[in-house]
Amino acid sequence: MSVRTEELCRRLPYWELLTEKEKKLVSENSYLRRFTSGELVHGGGRDCLGQVTVISGELRNYLLSDEGKEVTLFMLRRGEPCVLSSSCILSQLTFDTQISATEDTELLIVSLGVFQRISEENTDMKLYTYELALERFSQVMETMQRILFLSFDRRLAAFLVDEYERTGSPELRMTHEQIAARISSAREVVARMLKRFSAEGLVESERGMIRLTDIEGLRSLL
Amino acid sequence: MSVRTEELCRRLPYWELLTEKEKKLVSENSYLRRFTSGELVHGGGRDCLGQVTVISGELRNYLLSDEGKEVTLFMLRRGEPCVLSSSCILSQLTFDTQISATEDTELLIVSLGVFQRISEENTDMKLYTYELALERFSQVMETMQRILFLSFDRRLAAFLVDEYERTGSPELRMTHEQIAARISSAREVVARMLKRFSAEGLVESERGMIRLTDIEGLRSLL
Repeated sequence: MSVRTEELCRRLPYWELLTEKEKKLVSENSYLRRFTSGELVHGGGRDCLGQVTVISGELRNYLLSDEGKEVTLFMLRRGEPCVLSSSCILSQLTFDTQISATEDTELLIVSLGVFQRISEENTDMKLYTYELALERFSQVMETMQRILFLSFDRRLAAFLVDEYERTGSPELRMTHEQIAARISSAREVVARMLKRFSAEGLVESERGMIRLTDIEGLRSLL
Repeated sequence: MSVRTEELCRRLPYWELLTEKEKKLVSENSYLRRFTSGELVHGGGRDCLGQVTVISGELRNYLLSDEGKEVTLFMLRRGEPCVLSSSCILSQLTFDTQISATEDTELLIVSLGVFQRISEENTDMKLYTYELALERFSQVMETMQRILFLSFDRRLAAFLVDEYERTGSPELRMTHEQIAARISSAREVVARMLKRFSAEGLVESERGMIRLTDIEGLRSLL
């Protein structure tokens, strides 16, 4: 157990819900693990890692069809804990998702057995886990409604505005391919719509970067 | 408070989780209400009814887009409680769904204030509510995966097989319109595919009724 792992454990969002004994148990049964960009973290028949929290980097949580079609459900970023890796954690969830790293990513992993035992014994932790899963439920429903109901121009505009609001920067360092994965579309479709947005003065597109030049214009599409 | 309402309260799936005082409170703050086929139970700017349990009939829970497009999430039948009427019940759920009766339906309704208070004070009830919502999450994901990933013939076959397994009868008393609403498609599309299934000897179609004549054949499509 490194000093760094111990320190990161103390920053787990649920740390203060743990008893002293549980804190010790978590500290002793956690480890850090690095994943490279694109690497699969969960799914595809792998064993469940345990309770995962993002230390740096970014995870993408998505559905994968038998034919290889992907639908991105939500992203997890620095400090965010994951419970949807987690038909293994939550028995009520009978579906399974895939999780992969979208960039080089470091994860703090609390072993599955320890996390399950604590969630069973500590009601506050059980409630915490459920609440987290229900928040993800809301995120997933938001995503689904966009995919099912929004025309593609609005879906892309919504994504660009969301990213702007999240990062505070009008410059998105993403390829068309990456954007397509995030909004569950195809590279060509994203490229075509960005060209239209560009002609309308809403964005400027460079290699590996999109600059939002008219954020209010993009918002007006929503 | 009628004797019948009191008796129905005692059959609520969470009745045994309540304290004596809470049982009394629920009994005194519940009522029965009838909805006619097609009537809206929740959504469309209506006030939240409270915690709803189906006594007879059937409810359909669905998403509604700004343009009026509907996506059916799941059905609720006799004895089944609903918590997704429930950005009002569960603050973690930030999305909202519509609920309407698909046939003449009687509901037992526990007043919102009482149900919320009990869920706050009684941890078992809170856990119960969360677990119920997470089960619905799984149902919704199952539905979404079908809509997003399955070709239409497989989606229709899956629906027919599910209904057969649920009711135990190879005769479905539903119109093409009703089937379309359930699998979030259009009447014409359902009619066309049933005609194809019929030509393949999988079903026989009569006015307001589909007879499954080759259930193994339908299963082989899945």
